[in-house]
Amino acid sequence: MGIANTTRERILDTGLAMASQSGLEAVTLGVLASNVGMSKSGLFAHFHSKEAVQLSLLEHSERFAAPVVVEPAMKFPEGLPRLQSLVTNWFGWAQRAGLPGGCPVAAGLFEYDDVGGVVHDKIHEIAARWRELLCTLTTQAIQQGHLRRDLDIGQFVWELFGIYLSHHVSSRFQKEKDSDKRAQTAFAALLARAGAESNVKRKATRSRF
Amino acid sequence: MGIANTTRERILDTGLAMASQSGLEAVTLGVLASNVGMSKSGLFAHFHSKEAVQLSLLEHSERFAAPVVVEPAMKFPEGLPRLQSLVTNWFGWAQRAGLPGGCPVAAGLFEYDDVGGVVHDKIHEIAARWRELLCTLTTQAIQQGHLRRDLDIGQFVWELFGIYLSHHVSSRFQKEKDSDKRAQTAFAALLARAGAESNVKRKATRSRF
Repeated sequence: MGIANTTRERILDTGLAMASQSGLEAVTLGVLASNVGMSKSGLFAHFHSKEAVQLSLLEHSERFAAPVVVEPAMKFPEGLPRLQSLVTNWFGWAQRAGLPGGCPVAAGLFEYDDVGGVVHDKIHEIAARWRELLCTLTTQAIQQGHLRRDLDIGQFVWELFGIYLSHHVSSRFQKEKDSDKRAQTAFAALLARAGAESNVKRKATRSRF
Repeated sequence: MGIANTTRERILDTGLAMASQSGLEAVTLGVLASNVGMSKSGLFAHFHSKEAVQLSLLEHSERFAAPVVVEPAMKFPEGLPRLQSLVTNWFGWAQRAGLPGGCPVAAGLFEYDDVGGVVHDKIHEIAARWRELLCTLTTQAIQQGHLRRDLDIGQFVWELFGIYLSHHVSSRFQKEKDSDKRAQTAFAALLARAGAESNVKRKATRSRF
């Protein structure tokens, strides 16, 4: 878990752990206050509604992910190395960040798919920002000559999301031991289709499943 | 929606629609009774607990899916044609079956990933049964010479799940218009990697994204 310097951060760390295990809807003011070890009126001084907590938790999850997902990737050279680092860090990031459950945003994509409102919209915004980053790093890999120029970037990122979601289910729900290996095999095959094979031979060898 | 012959079926149809939109946890006895238009004690004559309802809803979802997913596929010849039909019917099945939201089992894989209990176990059982069917049809496609003999069937089905989940998010949450096309492109590429290209040229042409 993150280092909670303030009461507000302590509330957010606790709430994120709850959302990670049981979903954003399960984070009610009463249970959150009790888990933090404060009164409901004490919590109310920081957050006036369940929705306000949920929105802050979603923003908190992005800050929580940054040091284990985005920041280490940015140290790699632009192009395929950086893209590979980002994607590898993304798979299973929640556990490595110290959360007791899975990625709250991924769960939110299924929890809020058919309900409108500000929480839905915030999840949409975060997912869109994430897709944007994946598209940017993929574009840079094309510009560096690491992936082929006629690559359909939207399709590439769409399929990446599928690998991430299957890894989430495989590792969190099914508790399959080979989920990391499965995800890496799928990612290597996707990269090979994207032309990584011919351009960066050492980095991504063609996978035969 | 299905044809509800009995009160019990009417309760299950209504509950499945609720679970499809808001998740299994949202199906409480009180709200369900109100949506069916009966008293809570009337509902109690059919189901004694929320868990009993949730378990019956999960079983009901399998029966609900059969006529739009499994049964039409079984009319195709064994091998690649049957596998392709099953997978194509699977993508977006909930909407075609008349549900107002997404697949309750897929949502359950994220809702119950970190919580134990009988509902989790039932979702696990249904997902395992579904994987088993996909594995069987894939094995038959290999036996028919439509896919290559050294295919890693577990990996193939693992990646199929990813395409399904990405399609779920893309169509339900993001409301992307091209989600069906994206899923078909990904599936065609997966089949090509599995050797369908060389064996059944007309059925699955190599996709360049």
